Amino acid sequence: MSAAAVTKDVAREFGTPVAMVDLDVVDRNIRRVQAACDAAGLANRPHIKTHKSPMVAAMQREAGASGITCQKLGEAEVFAAAGHLDILISYNLMGRDKIDRLAALMPKARLTVAADNPVTVAALSEAAEKAGRTLPVVVECDTGRKRAGVESVGEAVGLAAGIAASPGLAFAGFLLYPPETAMAETQAFLDKASLGVRELGLEPAIVSTGGTPNLAHLGRIKGATEHRPGTYVYNDRMTMAAGAATLADCALSVVTTVVSRATSARGILDAGSKSLTADLGTLDGYGFVREHPNARIHALAEEHGFLDLSRCEAPPAIGDVVSVVPNHVCVVVNLMDSLVAVRGGKIVGEIPVAARGRIR
Amino acid sequence: MSAAAVTKDVAREFGTPVAMVDLDVVDRNIRRVQAACDAAGLANRPHIKTHKSPMVAAMQREAGASGITCQKLGEAEVFAAAGHLDILISYNLMGRDKIDRLAALMPKARLTVAADNPVTVAALSEAAEKAGRTLPVVVECDTGRKRAGVESVGEAVGLAAGIAASPGLAFAGFLLYPPETAMAETQAFLDKASLGVRELGLEPAIVSTGGTPNLAHLGRIKGATEHRPGTYVYNDRMTMAAGAATLADCALSVVTTVVSRATSARGILDAGSKSLTADLGTLDGYGFVREHPNARIHALAEEHGFLDLSRCEAPPAIGDVVSVVPNHVCVVVNLMDSLVAVRGGKIVGEIPVAARGRIR
Repeated sequence: MSAAAVTKDVAREFGTPVAMVDLDVVDRNIRRVQAACDAAGLANRPHIKTHKSPMVAAMQREAGASGITCQKLGEAEVFAAAGHLDILISYNLMGRDKIDRLAALMPKARLTVAADNPVTVAALSEAAEKAGRTLPVVVECDTGRKRAGVESVGEAVGLAAGIAASPGLAFAGFLLYPPETAMAETQAFLDKASLGVRELGLEPAIVSTGGTPNLAHLGRIKGATEHRPGTYVYNDRMTMAAGAATLADCALSVVTTVVSRATSARGILDAGSKSLTADLGTLDGYGFVREHPNARIHALAEEHGFLDLSRCEAPPAIGDVVSVVPNHVCVVVNLMDSLVAVRGGKIVGEIPVAARGRIR
Repeated sequence: MSAAAVTKDVAREFGTPVAMVDLDVVDRNIRRVQAACDAAGLANRPHIKTHKSPMVAAMQREAGASGITCQKLGEAEVFAAAGHLDILISYNLMGRDKIDRLAALMPKARLTVAADNPVTVAALSEAAEKAGRTLPVVVECDTGRKRAGVESVGEAVGLAAGIAASPGLAFAGFLLYPPETAMAETQAFLDKASLGVRELGLEPAIVSTGGTPNLAHLGRIKGATEHRPGTYVYNDRMTMAAGAATLADCALSVVTTVVSRATSARGILDAGSKSLTADLGTLDGYGFVREHPNARIHALAEEHGFLDLSRCEAPPAIGDVVSVVPNHVCVVVNLMDSLVAVRGGKIVGEIPVAARGRIR
């Protein structure tokens, strides 16, 4: 059955707007990235922030993934409950609520947590003490992204020493999320930081790198032990723009209906910012309409996608169903309770987004 | 108890990021807008897209609201099940799934639906026939916003005639969402369209206007019978920028923790685009930090808010909890399963966002 036919089937059965995932493409994406990690001698620890679905993590595990990465404790709770027990939480945790929940989760899963500051280290130590277990902690290092992460080798080594000295904690290594343009700087940082901790008698057993765009650089950071790719499982316009995917690699589309056509040059989709999100990145427009490549989604209201059809030779009519590749699939998935799964051009079920909204 | 104290209580009890709603402010917003509608002689039919909570709609009803407005059928299903039975669906419905669900909902609620095209009219007629009931339909008219709605008086009158001639449907009036700058054009359109349908023996019993910014123009459209304000219930940076609210009218804040401080000028919040959304509108930055008015949230990753603290005299430390007024509260609420309710500086419960994610 053709792609167009299954899109219409999905619209008819579920109504629009609805997110549709092609599992054949997901399989291919998972296999390709697993093979790349294997070839580079790196463990593959996919970031579940993209799919938030234990069902998809199971596909990644079956293909050879060594564990999962979660951004938030709430995601880790959901995935641990679903049997994904080897979890890296790549985020600074702190505060009463997080300490108590982390202590409660520790006996149920094999956790590693990242830290870039002493407040987090103290919180992790309190949780570990409360759980009566040892918690491995990696030092998050910033090598140019200016997000989280210590800025200097000195801070990295100092924090490693602080972790090693904290009750209940064990220094486990380094967490990196290098900008694609800063491979040399990242290598230099890692080499010095590794030397520094070794002088203290500590071993960076884990050196974790991240990012789907960084798959192109897999194996370039010497000393890396694992990679945390996220978006590759579904892909989107952003990974395409980064050169990390082609349209054929985009597994998720938002199936939506043209519900208004006020003039020959204008149309309205029933997908707006509550389906596609306002995430623009550096892209032009809010999604790619597969059936009408010359259509442009130039603006969004909450439930309206504003279509500029002036460059379409055969613009869609009212009632036509189209499928839109979103700009940023991770935030789109986080709006959905479930995704419709298709395979071989047929609807095969639904994928619950079990950790949707687990932002804390 | 002070605002700062309850913010910390919310963080301690629920963890961050979490959305907090001050019910004292909500009460005030509801009373103010109801009084304005009463004074203008307009029925108040609040748009529930902002709060998606039957609990909040009940507060609006108790204050005098005549019914509710829903953007999507899925919202109407949730609100009807919660006992809100007088519902205007201000959106073009079509397609098999919508027709069947609309037919199923008709016996359970007093529905009115908008249409701007014959495909929707045919779908509504099929649903009404299936339900064996009469469905009132209003013609959506565009008077400058270039979103949905017929563009000309001729189309409006023609569609009204088509509705009146369709089995199961009754022409009920006009749905307007005038730009704040197009009051005169809107009046002229409405006057001509009303004349046109009256010549056909049809009466525009409902003339519905919309928008929180348009509250400033309440009563200016002669012939209007009701208004559909949405955002006023919580307010946000966008309604503030539109002059429709002050900071004291903003009822919802995202409570978030500073989880990283790499340098003196930089900080990271644990609220990113999965909590605040990337919705920028025409604003600078992704939210207003109440405790640090000179801080600027200059970028968002999914779970990171990038703080520029260079203009803060007393920047927040790691672990500090702050509250952020979002740019666009409607899309933020749509990310949350529930909101923490406070009143008089104390936590009083949670508000389930029952229609969250009901985009279809």
